[in-house]
Amino acid sequence: MKKNEEVAGKLQGLGGSIASSIEHGKVPKMQVPLRSLNNITFDKQSNLLRLGSKTSTRNFMNIAHTKKFMQTMLIASKCEDLVDRDKTASIRELYYQLKHTIPGTRENTFEGQEESDPLIVDLETMLAVLREELHLKADDKGTIIGNIVIEDSGDFIDCNKLGRSGLAIPSIVEHYKFHEVKADYCLCIETGAMFDRLVEEKYPQKNNCIMVSTKGQAARGCRRLLNRLNKELKMPVIMFTDGDPWGYYIYSVVKAGSMALAHESERLGTPKSKFVGMTISDVEKYGLEKVTEDLKDVDKKRISELLQYPWFQTKEWRHELKLMEDKGVRIEQQALASKSLEFVAEEYLPGKIEKGELLP
Amino acid sequence: MKKNEEVAGKLQGLGGSIASSIEHGKVPKMQVPLRSLNNITFDKQSNLLRLGSKTSTRNFMNIAHTKKFMQTMLIASKCEDLVDRDKTASIRELYYQLKHTIPGTRENTFEGQEESDPLIVDLETMLAVLREELHLKADDKGTIIGNIVIEDSGDFIDCNKLGRSGLAIPSIVEHYKFHEVKADYCLCIETGAMFDRLVEEKYPQKNNCIMVSTKGQAARGCRRLLNRLNKELKMPVIMFTDGDPWGYYIYSVVKAGSMALAHESERLGTPKSKFVGMTISDVEKYGLEKVTEDLKDVDKKRISELLQYPWFQTKEWRHELKLMEDKGVRIEQQALASKSLEFVAEEYLPGKIEKGELLP
Repeated sequence: MKKNEEVAGKLQGLGGSIASSIEHGKVPKMQVPLRSLNNITFDKQSNLLRLGSKTSTRNFMNIAHTKKFMQTMLIASKCEDLVDRDKTASIRELYYQLKHTIPGTRENTFEGQEESDPLIVDLETMLAVLREELHLKADDKGTIIGNIVIEDSGDFIDCNKLGRSGLAIPSIVEHYKFHEVKADYCLCIETGAMFDRLVEEKYPQKNNCIMVSTKGQAARGCRRLLNRLNKELKMPVIMFTDGDPWGYYIYSVVKAGSMALAHESERLGTPKSKFVGMTISDVEKYGLEKVTEDLKDVDKKRISELLQYPWFQTKEWRHELKLMEDKGVRIEQQALASKSLEFVAEEYLPGKIEKGELLP
Repeated sequence: MKKNEEVAGKLQGLGGSIASSIEHGKVPKMQVPLRSLNNITFDKQSNLLRLGSKTSTRNFMNIAHTKKFMQTMLIASKCEDLVDRDKTASIRELYYQLKHTIPGTRENTFEGQEESDPLIVDLETMLAVLREELHLKADDKGTIIGNIVIEDSGDFIDCNKLGRSGLAIPSIVEHYKFHEVKADYCLCIETGAMFDRLVEEKYPQKNNCIMVSTKGQAARGCRRLLNRLNKELKMPVIMFTDGDPWGYYIYSVVKAGSMALAHESERLGTPKSKFVGMTISDVEKYGLEKVTEDLKDVDKKRISELLQYPWFQTKEWRHELKLMEDKGVRIEQQALASKSLEFVAEEYLPGKIEKGELLP
């Protein structure tokens, strides 16, 4: 995480270059990296999505750019204020802080948050700083429990002493410090209900692991936490989702990053993470034929999209996706309850993890 | 919370009465309380929604009832098993545990969870037991932070020592024991982002309160926690939502209970809770005209629905709802950021709460 001074310096640099253009009678311009699909590549070696080097020019004197130019400057200025005062704002608060009618006109600075949100990302990519470094935050989601002590703002939180409740993962985890981590791995779980099941079965204690619940698509705070656990503590991350294209995509975002945030893959992606299930191969192996669900058209469409993505081109993933297409079924994590409530904790997960039956 | 033996006794009573009918050559029947709107009343005195006394008969020999009868018995039997083994299952796991093809037929016990969910509620109302007492749970959502020590499964959790993270509220909080509660009141907040703002401003420390975030409509665990804080600890509950019909309905569910769960209002509702904002009166009072949003058709429709509900018939609420209709605007919690980031924590909330400017 960059220091406040460094980020403030970058923001002032942007402002300074614009001011200098004006003083010298030149047209104020800025270079904004393109975030369209043709500027996003999958870096096989690091297994991360990355933003390419193409940029576009935002020109104050081009009437099609003028408003966006002004809006970008307003956001940059407000971010400098936040950084200076060591305050954090949600992207919605930022919008409300900047929304006003320009004096002497009937023109509003912003008509809606859909105007400010993309400009925040422009600023992130332009200055190569992270949203969190600009002191902005997205919504939080997710829970952590297990054998780790986290220092948060001076409090030492033993995540093994939180009963069945777990710690709510905030939207920013940059300030977390890790202490006394004795866990062997981190199990990252898609659904809250499966997380609860494994808490009830004392899975983290019996298997000496940390558990994180993403509750659907993982939020930035949750992805950053997994990245830090893996990078700083060398903690293996193992993901457990529903056996459907949506669960597999949740995994791929945790692993390789997302297209919308390709410029942040390095700190949000965890390329070394592995996948334990549910796979379609599990259906036959564990006799789960009676508790699958038929694919809907929207599932089928999503499978063919996944089959196009460069980061699903390993033979293991192609096999699973093709098998899903062939059998025409999907399977949920909770379908394992058809064997017994304890099955997932006592047989399925420890069996697969011990034998290393994991997908890349 | 009823003891396991008492709940098991009720389930066995149901099974016993059916078995006895069969032994005596009588038609097996059960009486199921009606949950349609005409059997739900608003009890003005207690300020709670309540289920009336009308019932319908489920008759095993009536071919329109036979399958549901069988399904209800399967669920009751599985719940007895859960209670006996002191295990908890999600309602989705319950569905998967019971789904199978009946031997010698091609008939499945259940085709989807939409068949099992309403029968769980039938069982709750029929036996006057709570879902949690049947050892079933819904999804969890919500966070708590502030001056309270909670004992959860033997762990003592000081919610004032959780940094900026907070404790994730589980779907069942019956096992929580409260220790060392020094807070003056509990502030219950609709959005995660506003909760974060108040955490950053150290609102719970400066105002000696507990904060709970519902993150949208409050989940059962969250509602039950508020109910217990208020009932057992006499802790005032003050709610803070967006100024729109959706936020007001979230408040009314926390306060009076919901129509879908009218049979559980007594333990999920907190009739003594009050409402701090956002109100439409706030718009003028605090000069927020520039950051309101125009009502959409769907908002307008919802306002007229709320104006029909008996529990919105106080003069204060009718005034606010009519004002919203007249002005044609709604306002979000985060719009307060247009004054300053600190405004909500330093002026808006403490000002209104100290002066008792609260809606009933």
